[in-house]
Amino acid sequence: MSDVKSTSGNTIGRRPGGEDTKSQIVAAAQACFAQEGYDRTSLRKIAVQAGVDPALLLHYFGSKQQLFMAAMLPLFTGPQLLPGALEGDDKTRGLRLATLFITLISEPSVQTLLLGLFKSVSSENEAAALLRSFVHEAVITRIEPFLPGPNRGLQANIIGSQLLGIFIARYIVKIEPIASADTKELIEYLAPRLQAHFEHR
Amino acid sequence: MSDVKSTSGNTIGRRPGGEDTKSQIVAAAQACFAQEGYDRTSLRKIAVQAGVDPALLLHYFGSKQQLFMAAMLPLFTGPQLLPGALEGDDKTRGLRLATLFITLISEPSVQTLLLGLFKSVSSENEAAALLRSFVHEAVITRIEPFLPGPNRGLQANIIGSQLLGIFIARYIVKIEPIASADTKELIEYLAPRLQAHFEHR
Repeated sequence: MSDVKSTSGNTIGRRPGGEDTKSQIVAAAQACFAQEGYDRTSLRKIAVQAGVDPALLLHYFGSKQQLFMAAMLPLFTGPQLLPGALEGDDKTRGLRLATLFITLISEPSVQTLLLGLFKSVSSENEAAALLRSFVHEAVITRIEPFLPGPNRGLQANIIGSQLLGIFIARYIVKIEPIASADTKELIEYLAPRLQAHFEHR
Repeated sequence: MSDVKSTSGNTIGRRPGGEDTKSQIVAAAQACFAQEGYDRTSLRKIAVQAGVDPALLLHYFGSKQQLFMAAMLPLFTGPQLLPGALEGDDKTRGLRLATLFITLISEPSVQTLLLGLFKSVSSENEAAALLRSFVHEAVITRIEPFLPGPNRGLQANIIGSQLLGIFIARYIVKIEPIASADTKELIEYLAPRLQAHFEHR
C-alpha cells in the first residue's frame, strides 16, 4: 500500500491489517448507504466513518459502484445464505428459499440497505444499474442452475421479480395484509409457490 | 364555466357537458401524472392542460389524491379489464390474468403512469399511500373473491406483489432477460404460476 497516494500526495503507510481495513470500509459503507441512500453517500463520508484515507477506498474497491456491490453481496451470498438454501434436498428447496428470503429482509441491516438503494432508483440511473447487477449477481445467477429448462434465465428472473415485489409490498409500499403479516405465515404461503418454480417446466 | 365559483361559496352551475368535462380532466391528469410524477404535478397544471377552471377539479374530484385514483383506476378496472379476466372459466383464469397484466403494462399510457407514481414513492409519503390504495383497490380486492381459502387477503397480496415485482423488474430496474423478454413468452410462463394461486390452498 506504500504506493497509494491520497489527494495531498502523501504516501499512506503499509498497514498490516489489510483485511481488517477492508471489512471496516465495508461495514462503514453498509451503514452509510443504508442511512443516506446510494446517491447521497460520498466516498469521503464512508472514509470518515471508517477512519481511513479516502484513497484507500478506491485502492481496494475501484469505484463507488464496486464498493456498493461489495457491501451488498455478502448480505445475500455468504455460504450460510443463498448457496446453503439452494443446495441439498430438492423437495424442500422452496421452503429453504422462502425462509431465507423472508428472514433476510426482516433484518434491519438488509432492509435499510435495500431501502437506501430504492430511494435512489429511477428509470435510467446508476442506482437502477446497481440494483440490476445486484439482483442478477446475488439472486438470478445463483438460482438458475437449480431450475428445470427450457428457459432458466427467464424463470430465475421471474423468481427474482417475485421476491423483489414482496420486499417492496412489505417494506416500501406497505400494502396490507402483507406488510404486517406474520413471518411464519408468509414463509408457509410462499414456500410451495417457490417450490413449484423448481419442479415445473 | 363562468358560473363556477370555488371558495366564494356560490352555487356551481349545472353544465350539460359535465361528463365530457370530467373525462377531459381525467385525460389531462393521466398525461400530467405520467409525465411529471405525482409529486410534481399540480392541480393548476392539470386544469391548464384540460382547459378548465382549477376549481372544477376540486368540485368533481375532491382532492389531488382522489383525482389521481380516478385517473389510474379505469386503466385497470374497466369492464374489459380485470373483472373480465377474472370471471368465467376457472381453468384459464391464470392465463387470462397473465395476458391482461402483461398486455396492460406494455401500454405506454399505463407504463408512464405507473412510472410517474414510482418516481415519487418513498417509504412514508403520499405517493406510497396512493400506490397502496391503488394496488389494494385495483388488484387485491378484485382477485380476492376468486381465491380458495383460508387466507385470501394474504394470497391476493402475494399475487399483487408478484405482478408489481414483474412491472418493476421489466420496466424500472430493467433486469435481463425479463426486460426484453417477448410478451408471449412471458405470458406463457406466468400463466400456470398465476393459475396455481387460484387452485391451491
